[in-house]
Amino acid sequence: MMEATRSASRESVLGNWPRYDAAVLGFRNYWYPVLFSRQLGRKPRSITLCGEKIVLVRDQGRVYGLHDRCPHRGVPLSCGRREFPGLLTCAYHGWTYDLATGRLEVVLTDGPDSPICGKANVRTYPVEERAGVVWVYVGEQPPPPVEEDIPAELLQPNLTIEGFTEVRKGNWRYAAENGIDEGHSRYLHRSAFWTTFRRMPAWTQGTRMVPSEDGKWLMRERGKAVFQDTYPRIGKWPPQPPWRNRRGGAVYHKLGIRLPGILINTQTGWSDYEIWVPWDEDHHLAMFLAVTEATGLRALLFRLWYRLWVRWVFYRGFNGQDQWMIEQMQIPPERLYRPDVSITAWRKWCQEQARGATPTAAAAPTEDWATAAAADYVAAEAATARTEVHAG
Amino acid sequence: MMEATRSASRESVLGNWPRYDAAVLGFRNYWYPVLFSRQLGRKPRSITLCGEKIVLVRDQGRVYGLHDRCPHRGVPLSCGRREFPGLLTCAYHGWTYDLATGRLEVVLTDGPDSPICGKANVRTYPVEERAGVVWVYVGEQPPPPVEEDIPAELLQPNLTIEGFTEVRKGNWRYAAENGIDEGHSRYLHRSAFWTTFRRMPAWTQGTRMVPSEDGKWLMRERGKAVFQDTYPRIGKWPPQPPWRNRRGGAVYHKLGIRLPGILINTQTGWSDYEIWVPWDEDHHLAMFLAVTEATGLRALLFRLWYRLWVRWVFYRGFNGQDQWMIEQMQIPPERLYRPDVSITAWRKWCQEQARGATPTAAAAPTEDWATAAAADYVAAEAATARTEVHAG
Amino acid sequence: MMEATRSASRESVLGNWPRYDAAVLGFRNYWYPVLFSRQLGRKPRSITLCGEKIVLVRDQGRVYGLHDRCPHRGVPLSCGRREFPGLLTCAYHGWTYDLATGRLEVVLTDGPDSPICGKANVRTYPVEERAGVVWVYVGEQPPPPVEEDIPAELLQPNLTIEGFTEVRKGNWRYAAENGIDEGHSRYLHRSAFWTTFRRMPAWTQGTRMVPSEDGKWLMRERGKAVFQDTYPRIGKWPPQPPWRNRRGGAVYHKLGIRLPGILINTQTGWSDYEIWVPWDEDHHLAMFLAVTEATGLRALLFRLWYRLWVRWVFYRGFNGQDQWMIEQMQIPPERLYRPDVSITAWRKWCQEQARGATPTAAAAPTEDWATAAAADYVAAEAATARTEVHAG
Repeated sequence: MMEATRSASRESVLGNWPRYDAAVLGFRNYWYPVLFSRQLGRKPRSITLCGEKIVLVRDQGRVYGLHDRCPHRGVPLSCGRREFPGLLTCAYHGWTYDLATGRLEVVLTDGPDSPICGKANVRTYPVEERAGVVWVYVGEQPPPPVEEDIPAELLQPNLTIEGFTEVRKGNWRYAAENGIDEGHSRYLHRSAFWTTFRRMPAWTQGTRMVPSEDGKWLMRERGKAVFQDTYPRIGKWPPQPPWRNRRGGAVYHKLGIRLPGILINTQTGWSDYEIWVPWDEDHHLAMFLAVTEATGLRALLFRLWYRLWVRWVFYRGFNGQDQWMIEQMQIPPERLYRPDVSITAWRKWCQEQARGATPTAAAAPTEDWATAAAADYVAAEAATARTEVHAG
Repeated sequence: MMEATRSASRESVLGNWPRYDAAVLGFRNYWYPVLFSRQLGRKPRSITLCGEKIVLVRDQGRVYGLHDRCPHRGVPLSCGRREFPGLLTCAYHGWTYDLATGRLEVVLTDGPDSPICGKANVRTYPVEERAGVVWVYVGEQPPPPVEEDIPAELLQPNLTIEGFTEVRKGNWRYAAENGIDEGHSRYLHRSAFWTTFRRMPAWTQGTRMVPSEDGKWLMRERGKAVFQDTYPRIGKWPPQPPWRNRRGGAVYHKLGIRLPGILINTQTGWSDYEIWVPWDEDHHLAMFLAVTEATGLRALLFRLWYRLWVRWVFYRGFNGQDQWMIEQMQIPPERLYRPDVSITAWRKWCQEQARGATPTAAAAPTEDWATAAAADYVAAEAATARTEVHAG
Repeated sequence: MMEATRSASRESVLGNWPRYDAAVLGFRNYWYPVLFSRQLGRKPRSITLCGEKIVLVRDQGRVYGLHDRCPHRGVPLSCGRREFPGLLTCAYHGWTYDLATGRLEVVLTDGPDSPICGKANVRTYPVEERAGVVWVYVGEQPPPPVEEDIPAELLQPNLTIEGFTEVRKGNWRYAAENGIDEGHSRYLHRSAFWTTFRRMPAWTQGTRMVPSEDGKWLMRERGKAVFQDTYPRIGKWPPQPPWRNRRGGAVYHKLGIRLPGILINTQTGWSDYEIWVPWDEDHHLAMFLAVTEATGLRALLFRLWYRLWVRWVFYRGFNGQDQWMIEQMQIPPERLYRPDVSITAWRKWCQEQARGATPTAAAAPTEDWATAAAADYVAAEAATARTEVHAG
């Protein structure tokens, strides 16, 4: 009943973006990163992607993905073993599937001429490896080249990449909306050790969400930042102690998001990628990549700095505050405010740009997209205000 | 389906007291004790009262209560901080609410002239402190003075009060019915260390439930107690060893219950108050107060005696047996017996006296109330007997 | 919703055996083993059998079973005590029931003439002890002699019996079907230490399920075993290293199953009984008996061998692999293959032989039963193949 209520109210609030609203399990027809290459060997691993159970296994250097369920007795194939080259064998009765095609090739316990061979096959998933990461395609349309779904920056040579993955509580959209959200950083993260020496604005004006030139990213263009202001009842806020001014230090240089849920957050000398992969209704897989162009000693120093500092102060400290909020968030209902234009623009972007839409809807964003997104926000804000009144 | 069955049968069994039956989340329009004053400082605390999430916070000596949900993104306000006097700020985006009115006063991250101020307010709850306890009002009617819902004894000066609170398994009605239940003490508690030297009856005759003079309490008037009897198949029961007779010691002197779920249990020299506060459907908050009129050295000795003896032997030992039963209890169905007149009278009391009833039903108890309650019990017993037959 | 889907598809797949399909909580009108006699003393123990809560208690050498719920306030009688001979007393109000009849004989807290005596009785369950095991009857029909439901071998004198019980995840049918399943042993168990020195076939031909002469058991008659074969893409399988040939060692000599879920697995010099007792929808009680005909020193040596070797290498190692699969299994849907004739024959057996069927259906298996079972399998396999197609 709780669920029923929730769905009902969700509909009324997010009604402006029905495709986004329906994407509880993510957008299909995309390549998703799910593991680091180093995490996968010959031992099968089970993941959940867009609600589907998938077993991944490496054979002779390549990675394969199959539906993680033997049709015979419903046992996960990830309990089995890659016992013969190119084949995955179910632990229970030795049903043996071709890794590339999913065809039931051999049934060990029923003899060489088992009549069921070829008649109980399992679905396969396209898998690729790039940038030290395993990418899996989920969808019904023929997959595009994996490069199409990977930020070009990550495909360069001479990169040094650190990072980690974690299955976390919260629908993937909570995490993505928190990632692109313009407003929270200047309050929530003010107490993070990461920002101690950075000057953060009190508020900003005229932030716009604009498509990147290649049409892949939705970039957040900062407007005018006000670093201190005088508020009613509160007076001057925030305090800006002198050490906060060091290096004029902004928290990020460039920030953007792209489908199906990848954030780039350019820092001085390195980039932070945050990728939110739909797991099931209530969980997402978070993948974090800390990337720099470096080789040799500089690469080594970057790795050291990541492991001793960034990993803890940025990803556990600063980013851990986001995780805390994502776990607590419960929408709908919601009540939007001005900085949420970054969120509504992202919703509009998904609504219009996500693969699988009807041709009309999937049109490329026009030049006045930022204006359109702002108009969309105004409509949404009005809608949530109405909801509030009805609920009150 | 289990739930469906349960509700259905509940209806048929407790059909005599429909308002009581419906009060799964307690009776509204009452002041409820929820914390000790000493437990609450400037750090917000989240409670659940009658199924509603409430954040409590102390500011300049006063305690305030607000709905524990920021309308913006659904994050609990109890994650936030009382950062500015008279205001509570949400941890996520710095939405800042007036503690007294719930009005959204300032939105730090949207500048001094944020247009959403005053448009996304949260509900407030009346809060008072008396007798070292924080009382919160839940309901739709205008609240009466808090003193109306606090036992007068607790409002006296020169009291020494000890106690503790605990969220426990079981609907609040299970706990309240166990508290007023006349029958169980003489069997269940016979093995408690607390009763080792007290003489407890085998059974009693003519117990009556009568309203107190001020109409606030429903008092249990003990009838004739039989301390030992001869039973078929068992013979003499209970054994009454000589040490049980010491001090003629009854377990209580005076016992009564009042809405919305407060028990007084007068002991020699002190009183035990047990208050069952509706939390959610399956949990209640139990508050125990050990109260005596004493100051100076006598107060100190009482505190010492409470902490070394009463806390463990009475509240953990004796009362822990009640908690065990409350956690196990599953009604309906139920099958009433004679001593349950104490329970059915309490149900009838709630049915007729609880605030919010229609004027006719809420009439003051007449003088022959005890007789009416007994008649009600007979009807209920017959009803449960019928149920038994149908179920068999 | 998950449940709804599951039931729906279950119906379509197992539609050939509707009675078996409906037996989620087991077949009623049978004696079930639930405990070892040595596990039960005067302290009441609560079990769940076919979804019913039952309290077992020993009094003057005999074991009694009652519905584990006091009708008064719904407290489990297993919280109570056998305080008086022949009686069980509820912990809460001292309602005291006759162990043999379930009649409410005495209500301690309501005096010797409590009018409710005899009016709130609880259901009793027939209980017997044989072979060191407590057997409980659940059903509506008058119980047959317990000996009818106990394998005759277990009723012999001079037996030495070891074993253990465990409540495990998974519906009882998953466990029973795994037990009689012909196919999995030669793949799943190949890696168990128990089989290191035993030669196991690659596959077999012409396995038949035939009723035993007394009509009690459904025996698995091994066909021709092929110990090594040449498979496409794999070549020779399995490796048959010389040490596997030692003693020509088969994994079992004789294997059969009987209602309501008892497997006999005859080994050299001892028998392994595996009994799967329905607990609730998602759990079964597994009872394992290691039995040999021996007394004196030979009995002692058997016990030693069991405790140091069989308990760990057979029951934890070999049988633990089965438990792993039973916990993972999720059917329907399912997709049958040739060796599953052992499973479909068992389903057909239950369908036709389980007590409580209509007279026609419960006819004794005819002489061509094995042929009929094979035909049943072919029909079922075709049905699951169709399902596969529809699902694809």
